[in-house]
Amino acid sequence: MSESPSFTALTRLLRRLPGVGPRSSQRIAYDLLMRKRELMPALAMALQAAHEHIRSCSRCNNLCEAELCAICSDTQRQRELLCVVESPVDLAAIEESGAYGGDYFVLMGHLSPLDGIGPEDLHIDRFTARLAEPGLREVIFATNSTLEGEATAQFLAGYVPAGVRSSRIARGIPMGGELEYVDRGTLGRALLGRRDLEE
Amino acid sequence: MSESPSFTALTRLLRRLPGVGPRSSQRIAYDLLMRKRELMPALAMALQAAHEHIRSCSRCNNLCEAELCAICSDTQRQRELLCVVESPVDLAAIEESGAYGGDYFVLMGHLSPLDGIGPEDLHIDRFTARLAEPGLREVIFATNSTLEGEATAQFLAGYVPAGVRSSRIARGIPMGGELEYVDRGTLGRALLGRRDLEE
Repeated sequence: MSESPSFTALTRLLRRLPGVGPRSSQRIAYDLLMRKRELMPALAMALQAAHEHIRSCSRCNNLCEAELCAICSDTQRQRELLCVVESPVDLAAIEESGAYGGDYFVLMGHLSPLDGIGPEDLHIDRFTARLAEPGLREVIFATNSTLEGEATAQFLAGYVPAGVRSSRIARGIPMGGELEYVDRGTLGRALLGRRDLEE
Repeated sequence: MSESPSFTALTRLLRRLPGVGPRSSQRIAYDLLMRKRELMPALAMALQAAHEHIRSCSRCNNLCEAELCAICSDTQRQRELLCVVESPVDLAAIEESGAYGGDYFVLMGHLSPLDGIGPEDLHIDRFTARLAEPGLREVIFATNSTLEGEATAQFLAGYVPAGVRSSRIARGIPMGGELEYVDRGTLGRALLGRRDLEE
């Protein structure tokens, strides 16, 4: 099949998907052509539809199909809490935990000077506009616990107005984690961040 | 994003690709929407084009874009040799080995009564038509070394006309393989299939 231009074009594009290498791009293409032909136009249409309809929420940057995402248009959420995350995947993870009922702001990335990602790429305008909304009490920075995530949280905390609390999600031993297998950095953080038993 | 119908539709279809589970379908969809938007219409078009243009070679069943595949229309190939494989992937693997210069017949599967795949699904008509072409000397069965592959080879060998040799690719120790780590079935096969050193 190395001679078929349509096949080559398809595998070349599939290879750009995350987790898909040269071998699996071929496997996917053959599987579609030999066993799941009906899936091909359906997937093509779904890609087109998602490309056309999915956009950013004008308030929090989350992916959605309307002007405002489901969370921003939900009147039951606590508007005084704002949780800053790097991506919609992180937002989904926090929602699944069931431990949070406030608003979000999705950065769609983190500061990374080496990759050329500066503050202007993190939708600072939208972020400061959200910070200016009345009634805000606390901004919780839930960026990843990586160098870039920490730097991004530090940088953005500078925009939080006086009188509004800035917090960072806790770092420590994961639930069910055994001290023996936890890395030293995490263990150090967990000791520094210890809390009174009464709490 | 659980509320977006386009997103749900896209991840549901992606999940049907081989090697893509619920988590990676989400990862692919988010990656496309957040970082590779330009890839979405391109991939949709490539899927449509492959779906429209790629068909089966009318002679050997291989996937191609014309009436005959590149191998069947290549006048330099040895028409007296016919190698029977289960899929175009196997054909590509044999071509890459550089050890074969004859024709192929691609079954697009193997006999599997449990999955409802009977002889009629293996393009027997096309196979017997190919066997009837003049000048054929040998049919090499290169189906997989699995129960189904063996049964398929045995079954199809019954169609090979008298005077035409039927052969099976050799089973044995893989190149570079150490006896210590080879399974007993393969080792038994390798002993039974031993050949004189002079050869």
